[in-house]
Amino acid sequence: MHTQRINALREKLAELALDHLLVTQPDNIFYLSGFTGTTAAILLSPDAPGRFITDFRYHERAAANISGLPLEIADSALRPLPDVVASLLPDSRRSRVGIEAGHMSQLSFSQLAALANIEPVPTVKLVENLRLRKDAAEIALIREAVAMGEAVFAHVLSRIARDTTEREIALEIEFQARRLGAEGMSFPPIVASGDHASRPHAGYTDRRIVPAAPLTIDMGVRLSNYCSDMTRTVFIGDCPQQWRAVYNTVREAKELASAALRPGLRGCEVDKVAREHIAGAGHAEHFGHGLGHGVGIAIHEDPRLLWSYDGVLEAGNVTSCEPGIYLPGEGGVRIEDMLLLTDGGCENLNSLPTDLQVIG
Amino acid sequence: MHTQRINALREKLAELALDHLLVTQPDNIFYLSGFTGTTAAILLSPDAPGRFITDFRYHERAAANISGLPLEIADSALRPLPDVVASLLPDSRRSRVGIEAGHMSQLSFSQLAALANIEPVPTVKLVENLRLRKDAAEIALIREAVAMGEAVFAHVLSRIARDTTEREIALEIEFQARRLGAEGMSFPPIVASGDHASRPHAGYTDRRIVPAAPLTIDMGVRLSNYCSDMTRTVFIGDCPQQWRAVYNTVREAKELASAALRPGLRGCEVDKVAREHIAGAGHAEHFGHGLGHGVGIAIHEDPRLLWSYDGVLEAGNVTSCEPGIYLPGEGGVRIEDMLLLTDGGCENLNSLPTDLQVIG
Repeated sequence: MHTQRINALREKLAELALDHLLVTQPDNIFYLSGFTGTTAAILLSPDAPGRFITDFRYHERAAANISGLPLEIADSALRPLPDVVASLLPDSRRSRVGIEAGHMSQLSFSQLAALANIEPVPTVKLVENLRLRKDAAEIALIREAVAMGEAVFAHVLSRIARDTTEREIALEIEFQARRLGAEGMSFPPIVASGDHASRPHAGYTDRRIVPAAPLTIDMGVRLSNYCSDMTRTVFIGDCPQQWRAVYNTVREAKELASAALRPGLRGCEVDKVAREHIAGAGHAEHFGHGLGHGVGIAIHEDPRLLWSYDGVLEAGNVTSCEPGIYLPGEGGVRIEDMLLLTDGGCENLNSLPTDLQVIG
Repeated sequence: MHTQRINALREKLAELALDHLLVTQPDNIFYLSGFTGTTAAILLSPDAPGRFITDFRYHERAAANISGLPLEIADSALRPLPDVVASLLPDSRRSRVGIEAGHMSQLSFSQLAALANIEPVPTVKLVENLRLRKDAAEIALIREAVAMGEAVFAHVLSRIARDTTEREIALEIEFQARRLGAEGMSFPPIVASGDHASRPHAGYTDRRIVPAAPLTIDMGVRLSNYCSDMTRTVFIGDCPQQWRAVYNTVREAKELASAALRPGLRGCEVDKVAREHIAGAGHAEHFGHGLGHGVGIAIHEDPRLLWSYDGVLEAGNVTSCEPGIYLPGEGGVRIEDMLLLTDGGCENLNSLPTDLQVIG
């Protein structure tokens, strides 16, 4: 599986007439090798075996992690990365070495450029573009992360009482995820009750859950280095009529967008489906963020379901679908599942229902 | 306090004949403004008020966070950062804008360089060098983080029994830190028992604590955005004579280095004090990492107590002091406290004893 990914990348090197590609972005290194340490680089060649570069602290882990890959260990403990790379390349000529321009610092780039045998060549999103289409191994891991996220959510929901605070819910989400074996959260949980739910990125506070008002919980786990992401808005004790109407509009928007989602559409076209439904209910001003984002090794990655995203969707993309309506000072509703694009449309990776829930 | 830091930075701008400095490194942005969101930049001028640049999601938080600072909000939601910066500068000439070369990507740098009114100028560690000397507000926050770290450690130590696993200890460290109000850990805890303790960066496993062998716990909390870092090696049931000798050597190395630590020394000179003591006990090959590192907003920052670090130590530096002896396949001992350099020497910020502890 890593070999397949590396071979796909090698084709790009040939297209760009690069002698090598230096991969330094940690998520990309994990994608290509399975290595999870913080200090590493991969120097890839179109034909010869690549080199895996790390320092003494990670020799053991690298040897265990990158099995099956024709990579070698080179020591970066005593010399900066540019010098290590230069030492691995021929002295007789200037090798064209692609670098990840969106990740490598200007300082490292200028150090590489100052070396006699290296011509650094900026490249953009070579590995990220491979990561757009999840392969079978990735989809299996994402399914596991989604399932664990839902188990955590169900566990936490069953423990919410009228005197529970936002913080207690957030901590229980984190603790239960860790107990079940997650490495951690995809992002700090959002637990937003009452008017807090009107802010899409609310975080959590010491507030007790406000009865008869929306409680939005947005959470994801990181399991085997893949992320999950889901949101439900529930109500404690009662759901007033105003919020029922808002809830149904959001739920319909999500269902319409999911029904429309299929390969060949541009991300902005799917965003538009949900946005127009919400606007039609009089809430055009109350949906300030995009409909969705890719989810994988990173919690936010391409493709986007967003008004400004022109990219064409493909089978194997995994995106969130998370319309929302936010009424300033009053509260808000967001519902989010993760969707896998298939040849004919999409599959909802979540199984927890989106019916309006009144608990407690 | 933020105004004072910004003024200190402004003096550097004048020295370097920069019209502006664009700060993009998140820890540096926090240091200068108190802002903790993920998307922000500060455009600083030697004389005029600076600009705080963030997107719509963080307007509210920025307004609440950066009070007291003469900063303005500019919206980066609809345009990439380089375009926003260009729009804030005069059209009539090319402004010299310092950028953080160790943090800004080559891609962003080249986008800035392509703009008609900007000449980007690489700078290195301008803000990081200010952060070397902690001010009174920072020292107070670091003391609080250290105190919480010790409370977590004491809580966890009291719960260790003979059938406890490394993972259970690690999770309880994380959970207790979060219960006490930490934002999270400075780094994933290391809980390494028996031969696992021979690896300096061991992590943790499902292994039960090995009796009569070292158990190394290395942990730190992140509180109010400042880090703590401490290590203790304890023994369960019994401490064999071999390990008593190793323990005492490590403890003496730490005490000798602490006694030597004072402003005016170079980091490598302090490292040498501990290293020579350990070598004198026949363990020259068993201490593979540096003696210490700066701790502050980042868990690993300058100055370093390391054989290759020539920087001169100053009052206000905060460093870890963490000698260790690692016997491959057998185990290891590391003891770590955090030290604050004072005018005459240093103050140990930790208060938990380093006496050999046999528990259970």
